[in-house]
Amino acid sequence: MNKINLTISELNKAYTSGTLSPAVLIPELISQAKKQQAVWIHLLNEDELQPYLAGLKTKSPQTHALYGVPFAIKDNIDLAGVPTTAACAEFSYIPEKSAFVVEQLIAAGAIPIGKTNLDQFATGLVGTRSPYGETPNAFNPDYISGGSSSGSAVSLALGTVSFSLGTDTAGSGRVPACFNNLVGLKPSKGLLSTSGVVPACRSLDCVSIFALTAHDANQVFQIAAQYDSQDSFSRSNPAANQAPVLAKANFTFAVPFDEQLTFFGDHAYQAEFEKAVAGLEAIGGHKKQLDFSPMLQAAKLLYEGPWVAERYIATQHIIENQSQAMLDVTRTIISSGNKPLATDCFAALYQLQALKKQADLIVEQVDFLVSPTAGRHYSREEIRENPIGFNSNLGYYTNFMNLLDFSAIAVPTSFTDNNMPFGITLFGQAMQDQTLLAYADKIMQYNQLTLGATDWPFITENINSDDNPGFIDLAVCG
Amino acid sequence: MNKINLTISELNKAYTSGTLSPAVLIPELISQAKKQQAVWIHLLNEDELQPYLAGLKTKSPQTHALYGVPFAIKDNIDLAGVPTTAACAEFSYIPEKSAFVVEQLIAAGAIPIGKTNLDQFATGLVGTRSPYGETPNAFNPDYISGGSSSGSAVSLALGTVSFSLGTDTAGSGRVPACFNNLVGLKPSKGLLSTSGVVPACRSLDCVSIFALTAHDANQVFQIAAQYDSQDSFSRSNPAANQAPVLAKANFTFAVPFDEQLTFFGDHAYQAEFEKAVAGLEAIGGHKKQLDFSPMLQAAKLLYEGPWVAERYIATQHIIENQSQAMLDVTRTIISSGNKPLATDCFAALYQLQALKKQADLIVEQVDFLVSPTAGRHYSREEIRENPIGFNSNLGYYTNFMNLLDFSAIAVPTSFTDNNMPFGITLFGQAMQDQTLLAYADKIMQYNQLTLGATDWPFITENINSDDNPGFIDLAVCG
Repeated sequence: MNKINLTISELNKAYTSGTLSPAVLIPELISQAKKQQAVWIHLLNEDELQPYLAGLKTKSPQTHALYGVPFAIKDNIDLAGVPTTAACAEFSYIPEKSAFVVEQLIAAGAIPIGKTNLDQFATGLVGTRSPYGETPNAFNPDYISGGSSSGSAVSLALGTVSFSLGTDTAGSGRVPACFNNLVGLKPSKGLLSTSGVVPACRSLDCVSIFALTAHDANQVFQIAAQYDSQDSFSRSNPAANQAPVLAKANFTFAVPFDEQLTFFGDHAYQAEFEKAVAGLEAIGGHKKQLDFSPMLQAAKLLYEGPWVAERYIATQHIIENQSQAMLDVTRTIISSGNKPLATDCFAALYQLQALKKQADLIVEQVDFLVSPTAGRHYSREEIRENPIGFNSNLGYYTNFMNLLDFSAIAVPTSFTDNNMPFGITLFGQAMQDQTLLAYADKIMQYNQLTLGATDWPFITENINSDDNPGFIDLAVCG
Repeated sequence: MNKINLTISELNKAYTSGTLSPAVLIPELISQAKKQQAVWIHLLNEDELQPYLAGLKTKSPQTHALYGVPFAIKDNIDLAGVPTTAACAEFSYIPEKSAFVVEQLIAAGAIPIGKTNLDQFATGLVGTRSPYGETPNAFNPDYISGGSSSGSAVSLALGTVSFSLGTDTAGSGRVPACFNNLVGLKPSKGLLSTSGVVPACRSLDCVSIFALTAHDANQVFQIAAQYDSQDSFSRSNPAANQAPVLAKANFTFAVPFDEQLTFFGDHAYQAEFEKAVAGLEAIGGHKKQLDFSPMLQAAKLLYEGPWVAERYIATQHIIENQSQAMLDVTRTIISSGNKPLATDCFAALYQLQALKKQADLIVEQVDFLVSPTAGRHYSREEIRENPIGFNSNLGYYTNFMNLLDFSAIAVPTSFTDNNMPFGITLFGQAMQDQTLLAYADKIMQYNQLTLGATDWPFITENINSDDNPGFIDLAVCG
């Protein structure tokens, strides 16, 4: 494991002091990445990397927040000149330009090191649905990494990058964060451009951010969340959500009614959720138990409703002409997308509209809402036995977020007795990203967990007092 | 023709002075209405009317803005205890309670006098598609009244009510306003509740307001636009749109590029449009010619796209079990609604999203946009010859409004040489209703046309200086 703490602040400190340079670090990280199993679909070779390092010549760690910061890109997001596969070789193409969001990060000094494995066409929450191999969990290879952004999560957890990009339509940026001890920010829909991203369900797709800390997620979010006039789903970020906000000393949060909580038999996760709630109370939270049924009904609607038609549209050429190129499970799911009628579609949109109204009445009662990020952590063996049913269970707490236009952040909170990570998700209305980040930071400061699957300590750097990693005093803790 | 000027202010003055009472006026209006051909589907009998008159005992013209103000209700909007037919007898039901929006008006003192004829299931812009007869135009019975809110428009134009409720999904509240010299306000989607309204396309439906003047439309709008927690499509009206705003002395407006204007061979309408634009310039308007193609493409999308599936859902029981109950033309249109797939639906929503982005860039360049309300006024004979094609022509300037989430108001501006009414539509972003009303008022003050098909003069009462009709000084003009 890499000895250098790759959090953005620590890395910036090392670059600033001159003890480290990107030209030394990045190739070393790529060498390390080459040894990782089923994490990467493409790693940059020397020629591909060179222009990004060269681009740093006009930048410095003092002027560019992400100077020399290595990041991974889920392989359904374009990086100029290298293939985008969406984990389907036959679908592959080489984009001329990078995705809009990737361009923002590179402009701020970040260095892409490669494209990561995923559940094919971002269809799955398991991390096992890829012809490029099942991505093993960063803590125990017998367990799933979670998906669909499996490689982006595991590469970060293993300490190979400082942050990574995923996508999150139904939970793909949160479930693997939970299973690998990471922060997974699913920003408000439309804040991170999807130009240059392979669509899954275009009306719901989000680019998501994996980071080691909420502080880092916030750094990346502020750079990545730029309005894109070429993306018809792009939305402007209101001023209140553009800079860090203060977490209240005393706050309210909602958890579901007892009978709405399910752990699918995972007693360890159940116990850790109780601890996480107790932790929230310990840091000033006042718990309310509220009715999450509008959310849970919306979650169900995603899989039972017509949205699979969007996946069909996104893969229509492959599915109608080269369907053998798809994994069986992916084909089974997506090929049903040309069955529902427009009447089904509108009927589901009406249901959703009604659920949104109900959900809004619940959301407005608290500062934010809390659930487990996933109810259970399955082994790869279990997923092989029930690849669709157990996958659905993983979406129980995640599927509704984009349908209901919420922002959400997965936060690691503890480890089970078997040393496997557990985390919760904080969520609220769209454009509350900064609020959620502030509370996520507060939780992480309280828990002081080591970062990802590394032995790097959590270093307290208050998200609220600073938005430039180059100029802060660091208090080393843990 | 009724001798009493039924504008809200004039009527209020008469009630306040004691020269008139609702108990005398309303029955007289109902007698008058009985003689109108194909305008009404149901007129209130004495027993049905009595409770509304009795409800005035606790009200006064000083305390209730709509005290004793008679209004007509399109027969796809519920009035408690009398049938709602949507112009299909077999569909008919007797609602226990009135539509939410009707309740607001009655609470303010307004008196419903009956339910009006419409294009069956609000499907049409002609006013000839009803088993209750073709509603003749208020100026010349050989011409169409326009639809689908045909009876609501004509009853008002004939001076039988002070205002009326229509619905407007694709133009049904604007086209008949144009053809009968009325103001037709299509409020921002969601501001007037659709609880108790027979759906056409639920995602697009609006309750609309016909009035003799913009001032009256504003009165009714402010009372009717109340948030309805039971309507999942209801939206809160922002504070800035709750009270009258000032029209600027110098303002900008956009008209389409020349080649985007079409009058379908109606030279009279073409000439009147030019006059209307000149009128806008005369009152301080600076004209810009802008590209309306995103709007026109969205308009086309409405009829070619999947939204007819919403009409299918709304009438599914009838169309699948008693399809002979529908008019041929209505059945032909709506029965196609179970053909499109969910993939068609999402593909159209993507197109629409892109068009919305383009349209917004145009809208932000001016204070408001202007088009003819309809390009041509057809005779009933012409519509009989080409019932679907000519109907589509009528939606050329109207179909896009709700798809693009705009607010709009049809304003009468002149008469053709044949003494037939012509009007324009002002439109802008959602929640700009008050702005549009202010400019509509300014236009009407300039034109000083008689009201509807009556000989009542336009009386100047500045919309910007007053929002209570009971307490203003009237300047009698014209």
